[in-house]
Amino acid sequence: MNDITTSSTPELLALDWGTSSLRAFLLGEGGQVLQTRSTAQGLQALPLPGAAGFEKAFADIAGDWLASWPHLPVVAGGMVGSIQGWKEAPYVRCPADVGSLAAHSVRVPSGAGVDVVIAPGVLLDDVGMAPDVIRGEEIQIAGALAENPALAERATLVLPGTHSKWVQITDGRITHFTSYMTGEIFSVLVKHSILGRLMTDEAGADAGATEAAFLQGLMAARDSQPGDFTHQIFAARTLGLSQRLPQHLLKSYLSGLLIGHELVSGLAKSSTTLQAQGPLLLIGEVSLCQRYAKAFAALGVTVAGILDNPAPRGLWEFAKALGLIRQPLTEIN
Amino acid sequence: MNDITTSSTPELLALDWGTSSLRAFLLGEGGQVLQTRSTAQGLQALPLPGAAGFEKAFADIAGDWLASWPHLPVVAGGMVGSIQGWKEAPYVRCPADVGSLAAHSVRVPSGAGVDVVIAPGVLLDDVGMAPDVIRGEEIQIAGALAENPALAERATLVLPGTHSKWVQITDGRITHFTSYMTGEIFSVLVKHSILGRLMTDEAGADAGATEAAFLQGLMAARDSQPGDFTHQIFAARTLGLSQRLPQHLLKSYLSGLLIGHELVSGLAKSSTTLQAQGPLLLIGEVSLCQRYAKAFAALGVTVAGILDNPAPRGLWEFAKALGLIRQPLTEIN
Repeated sequence: MNDITTSSTPELLALDWGTSSLRAFLLGEGGQVLQTRSTAQGLQALPLPGAAGFEKAFADIAGDWLASWPHLPVVAGGMVGSIQGWKEAPYVRCPADVGSLAAHSVRVPSGAGVDVVIAPGVLLDDVGMAPDVIRGEEIQIAGALAENPALAERATLVLPGTHSKWVQITDGRITHFTSYMTGEIFSVLVKHSILGRLMTDEAGADAGATEAAFLQGLMAARDSQPGDFTHQIFAARTLGLSQRLPQHLLKSYLSGLLIGHELVSGLAKSSTTLQAQGPLLLIGEVSLCQRYAKAFAALGVTVAGILDNPAPRGLWEFAKALGLIRQPLTEIN
Repeated sequence: MNDITTSSTPELLALDWGTSSLRAFLLGEGGQVLQTRSTAQGLQALPLPGAAGFEKAFADIAGDWLASWPHLPVVAGGMVGSIQGWKEAPYVRCPADVGSLAAHSVRVPSGAGVDVVIAPGVLLDDVGMAPDVIRGEEIQIAGALAENPALAERATLVLPGTHSKWVQITDGRITHFTSYMTGEIFSVLVKHSILGRLMTDEAGADAGATEAAFLQGLMAARDSQPGDFTHQIFAARTLGLSQRLPQHLLKSYLSGLLIGHELVSGLAKSSTTLQAQGPLLLIGEVSLCQRYAKAFAALGVTVAGILDNPAPRGLWEFAKALGLIRQPLTEIN
């Protein structure tokens, strides 16, 4: 846990609660982050089964805060609102913004005397297409738009990760998005498929060589035709078997190939289906975003910026939309 | 073990030795199968480590045959010739036929008084492309061509499985092939990814409904654009989450999507890169081939036939090319 001492008065207790981690923020005036704490007690590692697990994890991470400030409003976003979560907050439909998230939030008693207000995810359900969903990213996006008002009119926000999301913003609302299982597929292929067998540790490898292997995979993806994916990934074995690529570079090659497939598809959808898509920004863990930025650059696409963790600000905006934040006197008058 | 009694004289002991199974055939005049035996002692389940494991598995499955006919020639094909096998038989390059397999075979003492002659795999190494490999399929193809001489001039042979292979035959030789990790990716996604979590048992499901779900996945693949794979598979979750598809049909949907991607890519490569590709035939386990045939039909492509297990005949042709088979008197005169 990482506490930053401050003299400002807390106004909100905000939880970013995902599958593998729980982060708690104590926020002050204007959404300023006063304290941050983080534990591994995500949905997959709760201390007890069922609702009691959520109550205990919440008490463990924030009990002393509530003891000091017992009337602090509490909001939460992420998988905590999924069907496997503390209480399900059913998806709201596109187009969505922080107002529609607030309108469809759910409340659950925390066991600590206060209720937790949980944000819903967002559902895209276009005619003739399989539905798509996000949960957690909508909060990060609310934060990104609040911190960068110029993006609200029109922007494409790419959130790389286990399930990458490409989100189109139009007029301040989420109007379209596409999920890619890039991170999960990479991990599953390395751990559980034959492709992982030849892969050796990359640690200590020459940075230029790993980048070249990454770009080699990316370019193979750029040149791919429909359906080629399950053929192309086999190269992460045959390039090793034929000693064209040293075994410690096969992982970078596969990473470039997978990210490349995501970019080829995402860019095509952005430019054809969604017309003028505005600036493209990356949101997420900085080193992963930098890897994506390198891939975009290699495809000749400009990334306008990288936004690291706008979730606390997004939860603040969500709480504001819920009417949980005291307005400054100047705004009331 | 399954022994068929016969009065014909054995002329060859042939082994089809893969990763997960070992099959032994006692072959008589003209390659006629006299007896067939099968065990699970593939490369992954040998009774002892190293060469001793191969010797023991061989003695277990064929020791009594060798005791009865001690001078029988012995040939083997499949992963037994890989670098993890009994003895490596390095890949021969495309174009390849049974003659080049014989010319690059390797011999290993069996511990039972006779040598085993192992067939190599085949390497495709076109300029500017990642290399591709087959090992085991080249023997099945040798058998298919011997049993169906009309195919030798020009044909596309599709061998579905863990790693599907699309093999182009021109003038009796393997001139091109493409691997697809379709079967392995399906299995890995069902067992190890989030997609498997919503999937329930298909047993007892209505056959019409499973076929409709399969075709729905296939049609999504048909309409895909480059790079769409890791997005499209996410539908095997979202269609379940949104209750558009019952959970027990999600596996069929994913199967249709994966086979569809393979077909879209394989058909495009066959028609564009390889020009007139001749009739298209399926080789392999019959129920899997029938599933593929259904998919081809839905895409408007005619399958000329399904060939079940031509491996014994292929091993016979390999032995003939090695000069291990006594020629009938009529041919000698």
